[in-house]
Amino acid sequence: MPQGQPTVVPDDGLTTRQRRNKPLLVVHTGDGKGKSTAAFGLALRGWNQGWNIGVFQFVKSAKWRIGEQTVLERLGRLHEETGEGGPVEWHKMGSGWSWTRKHGDSEDHAAAAVEGWAEIKRRLAEQTHDLLVLDEFTYPLAWGWIDVEDVVTALRERPGRQHVIITGRRAAPQLLEAADLVTEMTKVKHPMDAGQKGQRGIEW
Amino acid sequence: MPQGQPTVVPDDGLTTRQRRNKPLLVVHTGDGKGKSTAAFGLALRGWNQGWNIGVFQFVKSAKWRIGEQTVLERLGRLHEETGEGGPVEWHKMGSGWSWTRKHGDSEDHAAAAVEGWAEIKRRLAEQTHDLLVLDEFTYPLAWGWIDVEDVVTALRERPGRQHVIITGRRAAPQLLEAADLVTEMTKVKHPMDAGQKGQRGIEW
Repeated sequence: MPQGQPTVVPDDGLTTRQRRNKPLLVVHTGDGKGKSTAAFGLALRGWNQGWNIGVFQFVKSAKWRIGEQTVLERLGRLHEETGEGGPVEWHKMGSGWSWTRKHGDSEDHAAAAVEGWAEIKRRLAEQTHDLLVLDEFTYPLAWGWIDVEDVVTALRERPGRQHVIITGRRAAPQLLEAADLVTEMTKVKHPMDAGQKGQRGIEW
Repeated sequence: MPQGQPTVVPDDGLTTRQRRNKPLLVVHTGDGKGKSTAAFGLALRGWNQGWNIGVFQFVKSAKWRIGEQTVLERLGRLHEETGEGGPVEWHKMGSGWSWTRKHGDSEDHAAAAVEGWAEIKRRLAEQTHDLLVLDEFTYPLAWGWIDVEDVVTALRERPGRQHVIITGRRAAPQLLEAADLVTEMTKVKHPMDAGQKGQRGIEW
C-alpha cells in the first residue's frame, strides 16, 4: 500500500456516525467493589430513557434479593402503571431460571449457566432488550462452562442497538478485546480488613 | 507496656459489635468510569432500606440532569405517595444550591463549594440523612477551596449512623486514611479512544 494512505479504516461497513453511536459492550472487572452496583446504576439510567432492561444474574445461589432488584422491578411496575421509564425483567440463576418451570436439578450449576446463555442468545437475536446486564457472567466463562468464543461471536454479531454490560472478576482476554469500555474496580481498602461485617443497605 | 498485652484496642469507646456495624465512609476514586454510578447504585439500595438519602453534586455546571436524579427523585415521590422506601433529596451546586434563594454570584464556584460543605456539616450534626452522597467532592478539596482537615474531622466525629460516600479523582490521602472502604476505578479501555462520543442512557 502506498505511503500516506489511511491504514486504519475499520472494515465494518459502518459510517463514522454509525460507528460513533454503536451500541456498547461494557465490562466491569477487577477485585474491588462496585462492579455490579455500577452496572445496575446504568440500568437505572437506561430505564429513565424508556429502555427495555433485562438483568441476568449468574450467581450460584441467589436466595437473597438485593435492593437493586426490588427497586428495578418496582420501576418496571411503575412503567406498566404510568408509562414512565421502560419495562424491566430481572432473572437469576439461583435454583433454576425463572423462565423455566423445572427446578429439579438445581445443583447442576454448569447446565443452568449454559441454559441461561442459550436464552440470552435467543433474546439478542430477537432484540428483546435495549440493555442487558449479565451479572457475574465472567465466572461460568472462566470455569469453562460456557464457550468464550461463542459468547464473543454472538456479542460481536448482535443486531440492532443492544447495550450489554458484563460484570465479574477474571474477565477473559477475548471478552476484553471485544469490549468497547472496560473498567477495572480495584480494592484499595475494605472494612472486612478491619473486622467489619457486611451491612444491610451497603452490601445488599 | 509488658509484652503479650494487646497493643491495638481502638480507643473509640465502642464494643466490638458497635465497631462492626459502624457507619461507613466510602470513597470511589480513580480515573475510570463508574465512581458516581456505583454511588447512586448504593443510594438506590439505601432507599430500598427506607433510608433518608441526600445527594450533593459538587459539579461546577450541573445544567443537565442525569438519569439517576430523575429516578431517585421519582422514588422519593413514591415514598411520599405510598410509604415505600425512603425520602430523597438531590442537590447540585450548578448555579447556586437549591436551598439558597440567591443565584446572583453563580460564577464564584469556590464560595458555592464552601457553602455546600457548610450545609452538609449542619446536616451531619443534625443527622438529617442516613446516607449522603458527596459527588465529585474530591475536586473542591484538591483545589484548596475546602479544608481537608475540617472535612476529615467532621466526618470522623459525625454522630449516629450516617453512611457517607465521596466520589471523584485525586482523593486526598487524609480522606483515604479516614475512609473505611476505598475503591479505585481504573480505565482499561474507553470508547472515546475509538472516536465514539458519549451516548444518551450510557453517559447521562
